Amino acid sequence: MIKKVLIANRGEIALRIVRACNELGIKTLAVYSEADEQSLHVQLADEAICIGPAAGNLSYLKADRIIAAAEIADVDAIHPGYGFLAENADFAEQCAQCNIKFIGPGKEAIVNFGDKAKARDMAIKAKVPVIPGSDGTVDNEKDALAVAKKIGYPVIIKAVAGGGGKGMRTAHNAVAFVKEYNNARSEAEKAFGNGAVYLERFLEAPRHIEIQLLGDQFGNVIHLGERDCSVQRRHQKVIEEAPSPFISDDIRKKMGRDAVKLAKSVNYEGAGTVEFLVDGKGNYFFIEMNTRIQVEHGVTEEVTGVDLVKEQILIASGQKLSYDQKDIKITKHCIECRVCAEDPARNFAPCPGEISLYYSPGGHGVRIDSHCYSGYTIPPYYDSMIAKVMTFGKTRELALDRMDRALGEYLIRGIKTNIPFSRAIIRDPHFRAGKATTKYIEEFLERVPKDIYT
Amino acid sequence: MIKKVLIANRGEIALRIVRACNELGIKTLAVYSEADEQSLHVQLADEAICIGPAAGNLSYLKADRIIAAAEIADVDAIHPGYGFLAENADFAEQCAQCNIKFIGPGKEAIVNFGDKAKARDMAIKAKVPVIPGSDGTVDNEKDALAVAKKIGYPVIIKAVAGGGGKGMRTAHNAVAFVKEYNNARSEAEKAFGNGAVYLERFLEAPRHIEIQLLGDQFGNVIHLGERDCSVQRRHQKVIEEAPSPFISDDIRKKMGRDAVKLAKSVNYEGAGTVEFLVDGKGNYFFIEMNTRIQVEHGVTEEVTGVDLVKEQILIASGQKLSYDQKDIKITKHCIECRVCAEDPARNFAPCPGEISLYYSPGGHGVRIDSHCYSGYTIPPYYDSMIAKVMTFGKTRELALDRMDRALGEYLIRGIKTNIPFSRAIIRDPHFRAGKATTKYIEEFLERVPKDIYT
Repeated sequence: MIKKVLIANRGEIALRIVRACNELGIKTLAVYSEADEQSLHVQLADEAICIGPAAGNLSYLKADRIIAAAEIADVDAIHPGYGFLAENADFAEQCAQCNIKFIGPGKEAIVNFGDKAKARDMAIKAKVPVIPGSDGTVDNEKDALAVAKKIGYPVIIKAVAGGGGKGMRTAHNAVAFVKEYNNARSEAEKAFGNGAVYLERFLEAPRHIEIQLLGDQFGNVIHLGERDCSVQRRHQKVIEEAPSPFISDDIRKKMGRDAVKLAKSVNYEGAGTVEFLVDGKGNYFFIEMNTRIQVEHGVTEEVTGVDLVKEQILIASGQKLSYDQKDIKITKHCIECRVCAEDPARNFAPCPGEISLYYSPGGHGVRIDSHCYSGYTIPPYYDSMIAKVMTFGKTRELALDRMDRALGEYLIRGIKTNIPFSRAIIRDPHFRAGKATTKYIEEFLERVPKDIYT
Repeated sequence: MIKKVLIANRGEIALRIVRACNELGIKTLAVYSEADEQSLHVQLADEAICIGPAAGNLSYLKADRIIAAAEIADVDAIHPGYGFLAENADFAEQCAQCNIKFIGPGKEAIVNFGDKAKARDMAIKAKVPVIPGSDGTVDNEKDALAVAKKIGYPVIIKAVAGGGGKGMRTAHNAVAFVKEYNNARSEAEKAFGNGAVYLERFLEAPRHIEIQLLGDQFGNVIHLGERDCSVQRRHQKVIEEAPSPFISDDIRKKMGRDAVKLAKSVNYEGAGTVEFLVDGKGNYFFIEMNTRIQVEHGVTEEVTGVDLVKEQILIASGQKLSYDQKDIKITKHCIECRVCAEDPARNFAPCPGEISLYYSPGGHGVRIDSHCYSGYTIPPYYDSMIAKVMTFGKTRELALDRMDRALGEYLIRGIKTNIPFSRAIIRDPHFRAGKATTKYIEEFLERVPKDIYT
């Protein structure tokens, strides 16, 4: 059994990992940037080591500093959270070489699924449906144009190393394509140090629905149902829920089976998520597999009762899965809103700064994952998410009513947040009817007067 | 359907009621004392009316002021919460006369169950087991001594109007009895304006186990399982849990059936709790019925998924119960710790004052009910409870581990709290083994060095 874990992350996910470790009786080591000294995960971990300045990515992305901290503090394992080094195969490999367990799948799975073109090939091999697209990367403009023509417009250009919408562009015709192809490449180069891109047919208004997986070292893989993450702004998820209000039980089962099939084909170990786009008729297409815990994992925890982060740690400790597929029952509905320090009135510009008053909602059917408190200063160096609010109950309607009251109860003073925006969506009849696709927010922003959500 | 509710209470229960109303789309009116102007329930209710000063009980106990506020703001119903006027039959009657729905049972049930001696008679009539004791009140020292001798020492003296341990004294022999009899009478006179007391055989180390009930206007009554509230300090509950680690399924069923029988015998309407003492062999004895929502109701909500406060409001609106007995399934274990502003090092003396920093734990399996925030000043006029922490999971062990980590995560600065004391109990092998009786805390305080829990 793992005895001490280094948490190679910050913010709410670092705190989430501290919580799981505390409940398992595992010691924790926080590493932190100079900007995060006042962070709760630093205060609540058993030990903490500063690993560098926030500016210039000289801390949470510095594998050597993190490994050094791990060696100094004599940890057994490193949990990477999401973002930063969570899907960095070299880092996973370095951990292995230093005899430190990387809590996640092995290097090979990270490399293969991290390369979106390879991932697509693996899905095709496992007979999981994919969107028509290029076979692998398209490395020059001329070839790319020819492939785009063959696929048929609209086309989406995606960085093989992509994530979080970075290096992802859409083109509706050849002229736009040339521009966006080059934009995507340079953005990807800048964000991931890898400019390679691939192409896919762009589905106009699909749903984004993903399947949560857990696999152990013994070849067991189970799925924990789906999350509907269609409500996105610029490819960033804003609201997530489970189960999806759109798909039928039949499609749900097929998607789950396909996701498990894909993971089993590579002996997948740890928590992972298979993302699909689903068209209006319920046809689903594999888009990518994330080899880490995701921001929205809590939604699945609330509807299944399974603690995914604890399961990750137990799997990494060499234990068999605590659940069989038949143990997984979805008996509730859960909605999650990401609370971000951003100003809906100024095109969602980030609003770092000091939170003068922070009161988070509570009571029956509400879960809060947040590292914030009154007097906490949000540093300008990281993403703007400051809390996740989950509400749950027997029905979707109850979860929605509860989210409405929870968001109404939130008191955050000193900075702007997107809470009024999320609340307007929760109250929007179109969203309540379960009709949101990935085009929803774009359409919402055109349809709804600004003063409703600012 | 009720459209607007006056909340005749303060603190976390007032906020709890605001939450239930918000989720049901019902407007809320907060009434508050001058000391509670900064209270969250005042800020979060739709409207608020100040009803008087805190000192001298000139606000939450002033029925006429509350009714006046209700008339001014044109509310349909009054939710009394717990304490204050929650079990005041005259107040319930005044509401009825003003055509305002009192959210609770009718005057008669409050009168009959509020008088502990009458309640005992009702239990006997309904064939629910009771502790050997006096038939009704004992109104002079001489008669009382004779009855005490007949029952056999130790004897417990209880105020008929009692609650929360007030007017409750134990005597192990005749000399002590005379003293405690008079103490109990004068304490009861002071606290409830009614000095009448009755006697019972005192069980040495019983468990306190209570059954949660819901009844509607159509004669339907269901029970929602038990709560084990054995961990008490001076008759005040400190830690509650469900299900009880002590009783068997067989006893559980019998207690539930008996509680329903008692409530049905009086056509009970609303939420209520039948309290029992259970001896080491599993024999259980009715002690009282509370005709209100209880502090620890959330424990039952977490293990059953039923929102009791919403059910109270729906019942008061004239609706049938949302659940049949067969719908009630206990699938989780939940522990609750009451967080109090008191100093375990100074014999749990109350510590009102300003909370300079307040951060409450979050994450999977944690529920917080609290009206506190950073900068909130706890007034000295009311009880010292400032939050309820509930943790839950599939097993008792998981709920306990989660409570340990949640209490460890709580940050409350500026005042002393009983958190270290609760945490020491949660970690105590004796408690973890499910062996706590109502003698537990007394014994814990003798056994455990003070620095463990201060």
